[in-house]
Amino acid sequence: MSASPAPRPHTAVIGLGAMGLPMARRLAAHLPLSVYDIAPARRALLASAGGTDAASPAEAARDADVVLLAVRDQSQVDGALFGENGAAETLRPGSTVILTSTVGPEAARATAERLAENGILTVDAPVSGGPVRAGDGDLLIVVGAEDKALDLARPVLDLLASTLTIVGPRPGDGQALKAINQLLAGVHIAAAAEAIALARGLGLAPGTVVESLRHGAAGSFMFGDRGPRMVETYESDVAPEVKSRLDIFVKDMGIVTGIAKDAHVPVPLASAAQQLYLLGERAGLAAHDDSSVVTVLSPKSTPAQNGEDR
Amino acid sequence: MSASPAPRPHTAVIGLGAMGLPMARRLAAHLPLSVYDIAPARRALLASAGGTDAASPAEAARDADVVLLAVRDQSQVDGALFGENGAAETLRPGSTVILTSTVGPEAARATAERLAENGILTVDAPVSGGPVRAGDGDLLIVVGAEDKALDLARPVLDLLASTLTIVGPRPGDGQALKAINQLLAGVHIAAAAEAIALARGLGLAPGTVVESLRHGAAGSFMFGDRGPRMVETYESDVAPEVKSRLDIFVKDMGIVTGIAKDAHVPVPLASAAQQLYLLGERAGLAAHDDSSVVTVLSPKSTPAQNGEDR
Repeated sequence: MSASPAPRPHTAVIGLGAMGLPMARRLAAHLPLSVYDIAPARRALLASAGGTDAASPAEAARDADVVLLAVRDQSQVDGALFGENGAAETLRPGSTVILTSTVGPEAARATAERLAENGILTVDAPVSGGPVRAGDGDLLIVVGAEDKALDLARPVLDLLASTLTIVGPRPGDGQALKAINQLLAGVHIAAAAEAIALARGLGLAPGTVVESLRHGAAGSFMFGDRGPRMVETYESDVAPEVKSRLDIFVKDMGIVTGIAKDAHVPVPLASAAQQLYLLGERAGLAAHDDSSVVTVLSPKSTPAQNGEDR
Repeated sequence: MSASPAPRPHTAVIGLGAMGLPMARRLAAHLPLSVYDIAPARRALLASAGGTDAASPAEAARDADVVLLAVRDQSQVDGALFGENGAAETLRPGSTVILTSTVGPEAARATAERLAENGILTVDAPVSGGPVRAGDGDLLIVVGAEDKALDLARPVLDLLASTLTIVGPRPGDGQALKAINQLLAGVHIAAAAEAIALARGLGLAPGTVVESLRHGAAGSFMFGDRGPRMVETYESDVAPEVKSRLDIFVKDMGIVTGIAKDAHVPVPLASAAQQLYLLGERAGLAAHDDSSVVTVLSPKSTPAQNGEDR
């Protein structure tokens, strides 16, 4: 029943940000590629990698079998697809749009329905793993798509993902699982921040606390990953490298609490975490590493109560 | 400088609950042991293991070099030590009290100061790991104690702990690290509950969600341990076996939010988790497994929105 996928589909990548750029670089080595970003300087970064620089989403999508969207949020998705010179103006019926952004289940469903009016298929495929893994084809991708759309998108997805989880047949299914992933990730980072802030307040050395607890019943991936960077925040004069921006969790915890409200499920911890990320944004940390949220709870200028030597 | 510990100190265990009973059973195989519990039926459980049944804490402590307290909370600690027929009436100067309960740093310090007035040493040694590991000598114990007290308690602690972390020299230091452990553990269980409740609300099969996410960036020890038991709550007619009572987290999140307030450190997620455990207690779940807190967010009678088969 499935269409036979082109082995090397002509692909367009729209959005060359922290995730889009390394994904496009990797695809350019294997597939005919057009790229578009609203910032010409970002497009130029692809020229040496072999991507064709397009002047608009419509131009990038003109000859594409597959369009991969790697923009920030739903308003950018709408602009790239349905705005002036949007990709929907040129995409052929039977082509496929891969939606890699985290936008929430309803937005993914609405996008897919609008594309379907033109005979265009949608693969809901939010990604996790960060820029380095994006460039290595080592992303985790959770997919909501019917088989036909998934088959067409496979050559692209297989170049990007080390783990591809098919959640269900409908656009939105991938977003639902990604939202639950972000609920846990966002709460675990905020919990790590509370633990380290409280350790300082009690006069315990935060680094010792992280090492003592990370492998036991208190452990989480995020406590082991972000915890040491939170400790570094206090112990170094230089802010930790930005691996994942704080304002991503402002957006994603907004999606989580929104869909939970719509489903009438209370999520008091996710809501508290959302407020913490908003406080971080207000404190000027939007573009800082998300581990910087710890400074909302325990400002860097506050010394540990009883010194750091215990 | 340290006293030479007796290789087989006469030991008294006061409190034979979920943790005290297996600890006492293990000690009885290696040390001369007296035991006391407020419930005679609990004391009788030790008779076959070789412990001497005492009629009061004072009687249990009369010949003891080391008294191990395994009671529920600070009010029981005060009663066992300083109440009528309390252990402090008979304990000799130079003997040692091991405080295994989670009571908070201030309570441990106050207890140690009061015992020191009679020349009795204190080892602050809250334990983690649950009843099975208690019986196997496989507990995690975090210690605040001066060297002299620790040396005297070592033969007992070494029989109970597979991991002994010396946090600092003062009673209360162990409690501080244990409180941070409980902050993370209690928040992570509550986060797992939110994730699984939201999965149900979105029509995703909770079991699939747990398996998809537990080993990635959303993972935590508690999501991997309590998550499957939360799933079992919905998929089985029988409630999961009680491995750790829900009301332990009512107590411990109370300690966490109390010491955070005293240290002027905001802990909004721990506070939200505390409220969830209180809601669970109000719903009649105090003596149920702590994983049952998920039913506060998503009652068992509520079917998943779109069925369980996706």
